[in-house]
Amino acid sequence: MEGIFSDRITDVPRSFIREILKVALDHTFISFAGGLPNRDLFPVQELKAASAKVFDVFGNDVLQYSPSEGMEELREFIAKRYHDKMGLDIPVENILILTGSQQGFDLLGKSLVNEGDSVIIEEPSYLGAIQAFSLYKPGFHPVPLTEEGIDIKKLKKVMLSVKPKMMYTIPNFQNPSGMSYSESNRRAVAEILEGTGTLLIEDDPYGELRFSGSPRSSFKSLLPDNTVLLGTFSKIMAPGLRLGWLVAPGAIMDKLIVAKQASDLNTGNYVQCITYQYLMDNDIDQHIRLIKECYGRQLNAMLESIDLYFPKEVYHNHPEGGMFLWAALPGNLSTRKLLDIAVKDKVIFVPGDPFYINRNETNTMRLNFSCMDEATIRIGIERLGKAIKQLLG
Amino acid sequence: MEGIFSDRITDVPRSFIREILKVALDHTFISFAGGLPNRDLFPVQELKAASAKVFDVFGNDVLQYSPSEGMEELREFIAKRYHDKMGLDIPVENILILTGSQQGFDLLGKSLVNEGDSVIIEEPSYLGAIQAFSLYKPGFHPVPLTEEGIDIKKLKKVMLSVKPKMMYTIPNFQNPSGMSYSESNRRAVAEILEGTGTLLIEDDPYGELRFSGSPRSSFKSLLPDNTVLLGTFSKIMAPGLRLGWLVAPGAIMDKLIVAKQASDLNTGNYVQCITYQYLMDNDIDQHIRLIKECYGRQLNAMLESIDLYFPKEVYHNHPEGGMFLWAALPGNLSTRKLLDIAVKDKVIFVPGDPFYINRNETNTMRLNFSCMDEATIRIGIERLGKAIKQLLG
Repeated sequence: MEGIFSDRITDVPRSFIREILKVALDHTFISFAGGLPNRDLFPVQELKAASAKVFDVFGNDVLQYSPSEGMEELREFIAKRYHDKMGLDIPVENILILTGSQQGFDLLGKSLVNEGDSVIIEEPSYLGAIQAFSLYKPGFHPVPLTEEGIDIKKLKKVMLSVKPKMMYTIPNFQNPSGMSYSESNRRAVAEILEGTGTLLIEDDPYGELRFSGSPRSSFKSLLPDNTVLLGTFSKIMAPGLRLGWLVAPGAIMDKLIVAKQASDLNTGNYVQCITYQYLMDNDIDQHIRLIKECYGRQLNAMLESIDLYFPKEVYHNHPEGGMFLWAALPGNLSTRKLLDIAVKDKVIFVPGDPFYINRNETNTMRLNFSCMDEATIRIGIERLGKAIKQLLG
Repeated sequence: MEGIFSDRITDVPRSFIREILKVALDHTFISFAGGLPNRDLFPVQELKAASAKVFDVFGNDVLQYSPSEGMEELREFIAKRYHDKMGLDIPVENILILTGSQQGFDLLGKSLVNEGDSVIIEEPSYLGAIQAFSLYKPGFHPVPLTEEGIDIKKLKKVMLSVKPKMMYTIPNFQNPSGMSYSESNRRAVAEILEGTGTLLIEDDPYGELRFSGSPRSSFKSLLPDNTVLLGTFSKIMAPGLRLGWLVAPGAIMDKLIVAKQASDLNTGNYVQCITYQYLMDNDIDQHIRLIKECYGRQLNAMLESIDLYFPKEVYHNHPEGGMFLWAALPGNLSTRKLLDIAVKDKVIFVPGDPFYINRNETNTMRLNFSCMDEATIRIGIERLGKAIKQLLG
């Protein structure tokens, strides 16, 4: 049956991260490998209350097919929140509700990418986006991340050599690296892209989870006509809702709606109504504060125990928010090899290589800090430190 | 911004049906245009109870990311139901939960269709599937439907002239035509496809809604190794769940899971758990009986009033289940023109042409009978009869 497959699907690997998650189901392991929000913080009672109420408020149509664009009231809520929190004025008709923001990558690929089109991508970048875009066979142009954001010199060079259709970025607390673009880096990127016709894809799942430092300008405010901005309820409420959204210029929105209809007709009205009811009856900002306090404490525990247990030659960054920390072994030591050792001591993480285009071994690794309490984090980092020392000899 | 779009998206029209649904929101209209299940039959109280219970049963992970394949228990339920109802033995690992069965068309297109690949499609066929497959730029080979099923002679001819990658069928109470394949038609199709490597896509959203006649063999039983079977909870529970599934051979399943990950990671665990809880606590067969009795009565009201109010020259069929009836004006009279007249008398339907590949005018139309009570159906058909008489002169 080999010959039956499309060319586009045969190149896409199964997600290494999802594979590693299967190992992580063994609860005797300490896993820094996950990319999951903390289940203990899900607003369970509040969603239970919202789901009990939703039929009385909206009637039986809660369970009916619904507009492909998404629930009007929910889109209005999102627009108002952008206004209040970020000073962005976004017309409701430019907001499309998604079945998780992952769907946004697929719809953008579907609507915009012809085979061979150039797409700029951060190096490293989010695997789910790489997978989704890959299916439309673009030519990826990876541009490295620095501690300031994207490497501006290299970005300029790519922009001079090709005319990219789009540039995919996660400017706040990136997955996998936890890095954020500085304000001046954002402005430099916007200046380079201005007037080029390259669409900037601003993926912002973690932007609300800032523990320290101050908020930066969104690309949507710096390049208003040329940015597609993606958001999600997965990290501030719960991923099991599968509810995200995107903001796009009108001309693009029309095509995205066609792609959305073809993909799943519409996002489930039931979860949209329940989520909207939750947002009406609860203070989401109060809930986000809880999440930030918890993740912030856990990050601190990780940073403190890294200082205690990792050899000094190991690089690591200091994320100001989000769910991930990035570390690198000295020289060309492979984190795949480190994982082989670490697994034996029942601690796992994700080696960096799946986050790069076409690399088999790297010295980098992603450490998740959202899912474990501080005590477990300390034990896990101690074990991992031991494994690193063993690898270093 | 015109130059930014992909070739694949520029050819796909917005759904005419969704456009017409906007008109139908005016409640003074009588609409045979919808394709919606009857909202009065949604199991609202039962789903309310299930959603209240689901966290106590499954814990907080109800709201977490979940396997791309879908919830294990739900897939087991589906497998058992195929066994009990249709005598099909389907391993759980061959079942993939979908965000509505619409997503199945997208995943199949993504995984299987290269540009220019031949795809056999019924004429007329379901618009949502045409849209989804179109994005992967196949060459469509429409084969007309007869009252017995697909036109066997023409199917043979196509199978001799091209080597189709797949054949898309809705053998039970088709959308839009309400037609079903006879038992002998199914066997003839299976014989023609056997051993050819052409994959049969058996889309079965309405199969459980049979009001009369007796069940026929599924293609999955006639061509077990070469059939992908799609099902959905939309027509037997509610579409607002966005919950469907597909059954596929193992080799194909691996690729479909990759495509699923790239499309939306996984279908929402929350609605999967609620639906599963509903299925555990209620008798879905009893609920399906209610739906069938209601739709059956409404179909009878439609048939009786067509006999009363339509001119005898108008063709119509006698569906044995589902949600749609198919009618045709005599000669080449256009149902688009009929709609222009009917709208003035506040009755609407869907003209046949969007269900064909590349046709602007047809004499056919789709009449939905699932959404209105019998009295309203009679008034609507009387109005439509008047419009037809006016068009006939």
